[in-house]
Amino acid sequence: MKFNTENDVHSKLRIIPLGGLEQIGMNITAFEYEDSIVVVDCGLSFPEDDMLGIDLVIPDVTYLKENLDKVKGFMITHGHEDHIGALPYVLKDVPVPMYATKLTMGIIEKKLAEHGMEHIVKKKVVQFGQTINFGNIRVEFIRTNHSIADAAALAIYTPAGTVVHTGDFKVDYTPVYGDAIDLQRLAEIGKKGVLAMMCDSTNAERPGFTASEKTVGAALDGIFQDNGGRRLIVATFASNVDRVQQVINTAHRYGRKVAVEGRSMVSIIDTAQTLGYLDIPENTLVDIDEIRNYPDDRAVLITTGSQGESMAALSRMASGVHRKISITPNDTIVFSSKAIPGNEKAVSKVMNELYAKGAQVIFQDAHVSGHACQEEIKLLYTLVQPKYCIPVHGEYRHLVAQSNLLKQLGYKSEDIMILTSGEILELDEDGMEVVGTVPAGAVYVDGLGVGDVGNIVLRDRQQLAGDGILIVVMALESSSNLLLSGPDIVSRGFVYVREADELIDDVRSKVLDIMDSMPEKSRNDWNKLRNTIRDNLGDYVWKKTKRKPMILPIIMEI
Amino acid sequence: MKFNTENDVHSKLRIIPLGGLEQIGMNITAFEYEDSIVVVDCGLSFPEDDMLGIDLVIPDVTYLKENLDKVKGFMITHGHEDHIGALPYVLKDVPVPMYATKLTMGIIEKKLAEHGMEHIVKKKVVQFGQTINFGNIRVEFIRTNHSIADAAALAIYTPAGTVVHTGDFKVDYTPVYGDAIDLQRLAEIGKKGVLAMMCDSTNAERPGFTASEKTVGAALDGIFQDNGGRRLIVATFASNVDRVQQVINTAHRYGRKVAVEGRSMVSIIDTAQTLGYLDIPENTLVDIDEIRNYPDDRAVLITTGSQGESMAALSRMASGVHRKISITPNDTIVFSSKAIPGNEKAVSKVMNELYAKGAQVIFQDAHVSGHACQEEIKLLYTLVQPKYCIPVHGEYRHLVAQSNLLKQLGYKSEDIMILTSGEILELDEDGMEVVGTVPAGAVYVDGLGVGDVGNIVLRDRQQLAGDGILIVVMALESSSNLLLSGPDIVSRGFVYVREADELIDDVRSKVLDIMDSMPEKSRNDWNKLRNTIRDNLGDYVWKKTKRKPMILPIIMEI
Repeated sequence: MKFNTENDVHSKLRIIPLGGLEQIGMNITAFEYEDSIVVVDCGLSFPEDDMLGIDLVIPDVTYLKENLDKVKGFMITHGHEDHIGALPYVLKDVPVPMYATKLTMGIIEKKLAEHGMEHIVKKKVVQFGQTINFGNIRVEFIRTNHSIADAAALAIYTPAGTVVHTGDFKVDYTPVYGDAIDLQRLAEIGKKGVLAMMCDSTNAERPGFTASEKTVGAALDGIFQDNGGRRLIVATFASNVDRVQQVINTAHRYGRKVAVEGRSMVSIIDTAQTLGYLDIPENTLVDIDEIRNYPDDRAVLITTGSQGESMAALSRMASGVHRKISITPNDTIVFSSKAIPGNEKAVSKVMNELYAKGAQVIFQDAHVSGHACQEEIKLLYTLVQPKYCIPVHGEYRHLVAQSNLLKQLGYKSEDIMILTSGEILELDEDGMEVVGTVPAGAVYVDGLGVGDVGNIVLRDRQQLAGDGILIVVMALESSSNLLLSGPDIVSRGFVYVREADELIDDVRSKVLDIMDSMPEKSRNDWNKLRNTIRDNLGDYVWKKTKRKPMILPIIMEI
Repeated sequence: MKFNTENDVHSKLRIIPLGGLEQIGMNITAFEYEDSIVVVDCGLSFPEDDMLGIDLVIPDVTYLKENLDKVKGFMITHGHEDHIGALPYVLKDVPVPMYATKLTMGIIEKKLAEHGMEHIVKKKVVQFGQTINFGNIRVEFIRTNHSIADAAALAIYTPAGTVVHTGDFKVDYTPVYGDAIDLQRLAEIGKKGVLAMMCDSTNAERPGFTASEKTVGAALDGIFQDNGGRRLIVATFASNVDRVQQVINTAHRYGRKVAVEGRSMVSIIDTAQTLGYLDIPENTLVDIDEIRNYPDDRAVLITTGSQGESMAALSRMASGVHRKISITPNDTIVFSSKAIPGNEKAVSKVMNELYAKGAQVIFQDAHVSGHACQEEIKLLYTLVQPKYCIPVHGEYRHLVAQSNLLKQLGYKSEDIMILTSGEILELDEDGMEVVGTVPAGAVYVDGLGVGDVGNIVLRDRQQLAGDGILIVVMALESSSNLLLSGPDIVSRGFVYVREADELIDDVRSKVLDIMDSMPEKSRNDWNKLRNTIRDNLGDYVWKKTKRKPMILPIIMEI
């Protein structure tokens, strides 16, 4: 399968999202001009509820593999899993150089090291304002703000025109680390003429401006003030280094020691501190084992688990299985976070467990979003003034919300494009058009297997999950078809067998009935025998129980 | 097991929640005084995510069965599933009379009829203000407001004192149907002295007052005004008859015809109309088949599916599989509802599908809650002034939120009690105390089976769901232990076998290795043989795949 033959060169820019809309989080987009492809981000997604047993979902990069000679590199906008998480898998098939800002690259390097892939590709740390030249395509990294430091927007320059890709962003005039988003540069690029902008839509349904990260500091101050005599446990996202910085600053101001708990958070803090993105006052950070020696009013814990993830530190504390920390009525737990859609119930479960242990829980005020709200989106479009608009990052409803904002700004429907994964958008000054599709979508990672679990396996898991399995085993003599042993009935996940002896006996008799009622000829065809047992026994079990276990007849040949 | 022998009479009131806090929705509480028990509500709960394959969860009523001679009847506060849904199951074991207001009883009767249980127990329709006399216990039904008409609070009079149980309630001074909550009567009862109040906590985290149902009418009017040329599809809860009434009123005012879609909604509207709780202007309601003959600007659909339930009408429309209604870009879908915790993602999925079909979606403004917010809760306590407070209805966090409000009102911690399922609370004027527990909790309904799926079956389903099953079958000669056939390896939900031939071959060799390495003596013990294969093969598969399928060795004896 080759989607781009040498005869098929063109002088339009192609934008091809290989993931994104259908599988939120799996952010990866190819930009192709003639013989050059650059790829923006390489994220993973977490499994939906119906993807039973799946650990991770990564993008299908067949198109990149098939055009490997053209692919110049990965441009990574920031260090969140939904933008970097698939790299350890994808780089094996698409081993091309990576470009990212310092903290982003530090996080990627740590991740690759965990996979034993430190040296798989060349890595280039990029400064804000720097432009990387790939011949027909040049890419400039532009400073933005987000819930992780060192986030970048990209200006992608091609002979067909310039595309600005915002990455995930917000406008923070008073960020905790570093400078505000480089609005001047975005305006300057806009002034020169921009063909298209791909802009973060996550918060496009929310009016107004997202508050500055610094406002969280003020909220934390109030919480520390109100909880003077109590131990404080602050749960937040492992990667939100600025949030951690603010908790540490506040703790220091109130004379408290800080311990950090949760593997991913310890890892990111280590990287951030090494690279100079965290400024920790001396003697503030102590080990989790040591924090127990301090009285409650001198201790703060920063922990993972703000999304109610069952294995994270906070969840283990809440359910009483954490090895080192026991929740007491003198604890105040601060959720410095918001539940990501789909996690609401898990978060609520953790809160209920904390309350049941007598603790107090604060779940408002100590968080701001990392994404632009409506006024920020309008600001960015007004600065950049692209000819075409391609809302990205978010569910369909969020992309539509951004489209509606764009119409308020005067854009016409035909200048706005919502792309689905695998669509090839061709564009230049004369127009934009979807001209075809490439393979794209979800590849399931389950344990060590990448792509070996597909829809058949998932359908089986769903049936097994719902009603279990009923196995019918028998031994037949190969020449005579004589029943030498069985049928034995074994079930798992169907009914509690000790209370269902009678049902299992009925099933055994039914199997014998089914076999007896088959014409001699069909019995000789063991495939037919298996199918007949499966169908008739399935009907019988459904009538008796209104359940549909998987029926699996196994015939041994003796 | 008998928890109350004749020698064990007492002159305190016992309150025993048989469901509730651990399994939200399963509302059922026993009130016991000497030889009388009355039961308030009999709700069901929907399965949590880890209860694979379970259809419904109903309460364990062992205590009522064991004390059947004492049980006088079920008092039902209103017609929602979480208050009536378990009746078809529980009445089989506890066949005692039911008491409820007119609409509530109408809904229960329809439900029982669906189960072929019309005549299983005596039913008594109660008027507001009426008191039912059970000797030592008397129960008065008091009008409240809620998101379904005819909701009642209960005053439970016993020689040990009076308990007020609010049921689910809000304070609506301008309800759509009927009168406002009977605050006068609640005050009068309070004035005479109330031992304890059990008060709805669902919205205890929300400040202020819940808006009147009538305000939704104004919002609907604005939506009809703004969407003049478009077809309107309004999704709401099947049981919210007042909401349906308001949609119909607005549609009539704008000269539109209304069709209703969704089995549960058609059923409740039928009951409500028959009993006089719905006032439908002539020629307004048309059949779903007929509505297609009207132009978009003269049509309104009211539908189920506002929670994103995959089989509900709206979800089928959104995914394009509804037999009668196709979504078009000229549709505006109004979610006259809020996502119940846990349903957020499903609702979002439906919205995304509607947007992808070009429709417009409105998901704000056209809904109010049916539960009391903080100011209403304070109002009720100030009117009733109970000695003791027992927050009910809600998650632990909500009960804690109500407790915090009560402390603002001057209650002391020792006068507030949060009960967990099965706890026996004894109380009178001298104090309240948990004195023991009775069996309580969740009974799983799966298909026709009630209680035959327990934790072992669920654990099996979870393992099957996560990594599938690997079956090892072989035939051994009974006398010699000679391998006559196999081992055959059959897997389901583990890997896609056509791409994993090699792995399956490896597994087969490994089984032979395991058997070969066993001492002759252990091989003769087939239980030991099975366990050895299970453990060693499990380790082998984990090392090779990082998956843990269920390993099921089956040995046939020939």
